[in-house]
Amino acid sequence: MKAIKHIEIKKGISVNELVKQMENSGVMGAGAIAKAANVLEKMIKDKDCKIYLGMAGAMVPGGMRNIIIDIIKNKLIDVFVTTGANLTHDLIEGLGHKHYQGESNVDDAELNKKGIYRMYNSYMKNEVYEDLEDFFDKHYSVLSKCKNIREFLSRLGELSPEGTILNACFKNNIPIFCPSLADSGIGLIIWGRLVQGKEMDVKAFDDLKDIIEIAWTSKKNGVVYLGGGVPKNYIQQALQVVPNKADFGIQITMDRAEPGGSSGAPLKEGISWGKMKKEADFVDVICDVTIALPLIYGAVKDRI
Amino acid sequence: MKAIKHIEIKKGISVNELVKQMENSGVMGAGAIAKAANVLEKMIKDKDCKIYLGMAGAMVPGGMRNIIIDIIKNKLIDVFVTTGANLTHDLIEGLGHKHYQGESNVDDAELNKKGIYRMYNSYMKNEVYEDLEDFFDKHYSVLSKCKNIREFLSRLGELSPEGTILNACFKNNIPIFCPSLADSGIGLIIWGRLVQGKEMDVKAFDDLKDIIEIAWTSKKNGVVYLGGGVPKNYIQQALQVVPNKADFGIQITMDRAEPGGSSGAPLKEGISWGKMKKEADFVDVICDVTIALPLIYGAVKDRI
Amino acid sequence: MKAIKHIEIKKGISVNELVKQMENSGVMGAGAIAKAANVLEKMIKDKDCKIYLGMAGAMVPGGMRNIIIDIIKNKLIDVFVTTGANLTHDLIEGLGHKHYQGESNVDDAELNKKGIYRMYNSYMKNEVYEDLEDFFDKHYSVLSKCKNIREFLSRLGELSPEGTILNACFKNNIPIFCPSLADSGIGLIIWGRLVQGKEMDVKAFDDLKDIIEIAWTSKKNGVVYLGGGVPKNYIQQALQVVPNKADFGIQITMDRAEPGGSSGAPLKEGISWGKMKKEADFVDVICDVTIALPLIYGAVKDRI
Amino acid sequence: MKAIKHIEIKKGISVNELVKQMENSGVMGAGAIAKAANVLEKMIKDKDCKIYLGMAGAMVPGGMRNIIIDIIKNKLIDVFVTTGANLTHDLIEGLGHKHYQGESNVDDAELNKKGIYRMYNSYMKNEVYEDLEDFFDKHYSVLSKCKNIREFLSRLGELSPEGTILNACFKNNIPIFCPSLADSGIGLIIWGRLVQGKEMDVKAFDDLKDIIEIAWTSKKNGVVYLGGGVPKNYIQQALQVVPNKADFGIQITMDRAEPGGSSGAPLKEGISWGKMKKEADFVDVICDVTIALPLIYGAVKDRI
Repeated sequence: MKAIKHIEIKKGISVNELVKQMENSGVMGAGAIAKAANVLEKMIKDKDCKIYLGMAGAMVPGGMRNIIIDIIKNKLIDVFVTTGANLTHDLIEGLGHKHYQGESNVDDAELNKKGIYRMYNSYMKNEVYEDLEDFFDKHYSVLSKCKNIREFLSRLGELSPEGTILNACFKNNIPIFCPSLADSGIGLIIWGRLVQGKEMDVKAFDDLKDIIEIAWTSKKNGVVYLGGGVPKNYIQQALQVVPNKADFGIQITMDRAEPGGSSGAPLKEGISWGKMKKEADFVDVICDVTIALPLIYGAVKDRI
Repeated sequence: MKAIKHIEIKKGISVNELVKQMENSGVMGAGAIAKAANVLEKMIKDKDCKIYLGMAGAMVPGGMRNIIIDIIKNKLIDVFVTTGANLTHDLIEGLGHKHYQGESNVDDAELNKKGIYRMYNSYMKNEVYEDLEDFFDKHYSVLSKCKNIREFLSRLGELSPEGTILNACFKNNIPIFCPSLADSGIGLIIWGRLVQGKEMDVKAFDDLKDIIEIAWTSKKNGVVYLGGGVPKNYIQQALQVVPNKADFGIQITMDRAEPGGSSGAPLKEGISWGKMKKEADFVDVICDVTIALPLIYGAVKDRI
Repeated sequence: MKAIKHIEIKKGISVNELVKQMENSGVMGAGAIAKAANVLEKMIKDKDCKIYLGMAGAMVPGGMRNIIIDIIKNKLIDVFVTTGANLTHDLIEGLGHKHYQGESNVDDAELNKKGIYRMYNSYMKNEVYEDLEDFFDKHYSVLSKCKNIREFLSRLGELSPEGTILNACFKNNIPIFCPSLADSGIGLIIWGRLVQGKEMDVKAFDDLKDIIEIAWTSKKNGVVYLGGGVPKNYIQQALQVVPNKADFGIQITMDRAEPGGSSGAPLKEGISWGKMKKEADFVDVICDVTIALPLIYGAVKDRI
Repeated sequence: MKAIKHIEIKKGISVNELVKQMENSGVMGAGAIAKAANVLEKMIKDKDCKIYLGMAGAMVPGGMRNIIIDIIKNKLIDVFVTTGANLTHDLIEGLGHKHYQGESNVDDAELNKKGIYRMYNSYMKNEVYEDLEDFFDKHYSVLSKCKNIREFLSRLGELSPEGTILNACFKNNIPIFCPSLADSGIGLIIWGRLVQGKEMDVKAFDDLKDIIEIAWTSKKNGVVYLGGGVPKNYIQQALQVVPNKADFGIQITMDRAEPGGSSGAPLKEGISWGKMKKEADFVDVICDVTIALPLIYGAVKDRI
């Protein structure tokens, strides 16, 4: 048995030093953070390993956008799966808008009057939709020719301004999957054009071929889940049907296991489904992603 | 101020009597259950109100299927939005298979060897996929002609055995929306045919027209969310763009608000977005759905 | 493997019928409720079993008082361990005051001005303290002669009005343990007299002899924890040192296991400590106590 | 409105730089961490402010011991309130024993056979109790002369080895309050001597005079709660009765507000009770303490 070494804080301590100390303390939340950094380091350093990043939750309104872009620019991941909401918020910022620091204990009717949308304590002005509409009007004919969501998002990334997650993925040849794209602001914009009689023939199931082919042909697979939701499950099910199940896994979530949903399910459960190898190196981090991700990535950045 | 009246348990107490007492105690979880029953009763009794049921999480593996079917057969809802996973589990039971009572503290590698998939402490045999494959092979030509997910699910409901949620919705003309259907066992089955060169041209965005049209033309709207995820958000965003925002709302979830995701966001947040009226009658129930739903529906069933 | 039978709601369904159906569904939260009812029924019907009820959290302000009194009057438990806060709230109601149904999203400074104390959405007027002071002034000389907390609470129960938990325990010879009694409104009242130079020589450790002797001499032991905190841990540690560890266990809590505290620790952890038998019949219910307790007790009341 | 600035991770980033960036992102968990660091910095730098640290949960088994000792040695706090369990674990380490890195998904009966106690994934050998018994046998006559818990713990600190929290508090004249000391391993050791007929007359209520006097005579008060439980409530109630309510507050917990207990109650609730000023600078951090505390203290250490 390895003894717990208590964490010591020294002036000027770096994130990597702290996370290494968390490895020595080794238990509870701190232990999970340290293990996540180790697992992420291993999967990045393993040349045979394809890495799938699933991101749900309000990560762009939560200030995580530049970490994601940094991960993409450094080509640390091979596949990005996210929600339509995060892509919408990303594009909105790309069009020059901001998210704002707000309050959660607030009069939402008052916010509504002022034209402010709230995501916990992150705010967005509803006027952003005008620019979003203009952007899609300008590019609709190009986008409407796309055959599936992956292609749509690749083209959207090409058209998106520098500094967006969308554009970074495009430039770095990282495919974006977003099976529930219709369920987002982008979906609503497209709906606005569909009811005007415009076309959008993007197919719903087509992308499955692409993500599963990537997973099928990888020697090793590593998964990183920020939140659960569709992004997690979509990666999980791809790994279920391929020969090489996940070798590495990190999940950061505040959802609980007991109600039985996929978002809160510990990674271990995936072993029963053949989504993860029984000897895989994996960890569940029960923490707010906006705390855990900067810590873990801050440590790993020093190591690679 | 209304005084709290302590709950009194008498022999033979009915669910409705208990929930009415919870109204008199009126606070914390019990108060929320009671309020949810009242709000559900009101929206059902309001002839002008269209009701949208969003269901995420492992509700079929969790034993909630017959409650949902009863709700549908009694035409208590107008729109059903769910995950592909729940529809897959529903169809699997329709094909004669079962889910089983299991354990959560278990050796998942052992389960995997035995061909058992685990959702917390609910099990399913992996052999179910064979019948699922056969079912889709038999009906693929019909299903592949569908133009969007709603139509696909309506047709699937027609083809599904009696006793399924899918079939009950079909028979009762309740549309099923499932924007992330590709993210499910049904998605995987379709993938298996796509890679064989078969077609499936179901469009990703088309359904938005239908759900938003229903919401647009309703005099009043009531929302019921079992879990969060895409089903909740898809209904929320439909209400965002229509003139009549939600008048009634019930959300049952164990997710937390603080990490900022949609699944844990209290209904109140939707007022800032214009998804819910500021004067709406709504309640957040922080509870496992498998506990709260039978209680709430058990009470309401006595009142309608 | 036992197949999951989906819950069916019929008009007029009783709580006991619902909980029995939850046994047939058998998984997730509903399965835990059903198992808790079965375990409670078993421990009550086992003539050799002493039952320890630990209660933390705002249970009196939460409307649970009469359920506890009913349990006590029916002599279903042998030992009651709780927090000073619950006993304070109980006595306050005994002196003729009420708790009130309030709001959680509220201006607390406004409440403070109005003399209202808030516990989530349960309110109490601060004027209650005057009667509490008078009560203790009247009885201080008697109470100050008590040698330990158990004796103090027994005497307090004798002096307390009919209809209180305190009085019900006294009349039914059920000892109340409350190791952190100083940490409560009652503690503050006593402090007010200590600074006036009055005595209160109640000893801090003495009660350990009594609770451990009860546990030592029992043939079987069953534990029921409403919330965690000191009440749970105090019972747990008594069982740790006695020959007969717990045979039955129920824990109802919303706390999580991962941060490592006692309140969220699953009962299973107690097996490593020798607090519970490895073959014990036990269940963790992840639910708000104000929902779970009426359901479980409502079912068990029909069975005994 | 202040725009959210996305966090940027650079190689070698220090904890303080990261936490400052979290201030610029400013929302959700990261925003709360940053605010907690700012509030802690302010209360430490305010010469008029007395600081009360309340610590519950398995913090010594969780690797937080040296951070606490560092805080004490730097005289950053004025009052320390904790659970008997943490003091027991602290003394056990002082006597030369260790805690160990373990697993949470484990056979607890197997651990029990091996003489290992489990706190989530932190282990302790049960043989530690022998040395604990010897220590108390050696010092019992001195300890049994103490009149109240504060005095008992001060004397225990004097007798405890260098390197313990207990000893650090003694040397730095920081009083330790622990109203539920009987509810702990130390309590059990004392019980063992009580049943042998030895005395221990420590009074239960006496300490209230001391803690309330400190709070009464402070110009300003700042509270820091690691977990909830008795330590939080004991500090809260002291502030309730004194003229100067808390000016600063930090609470780190994973407990939820909705069930109504004190441990999960947001600090804001204390304003209704007159425990905190309405204009106080305070923040609730929803995070595992073993993650949040090193981050917050790591940042603040650079600033003072």
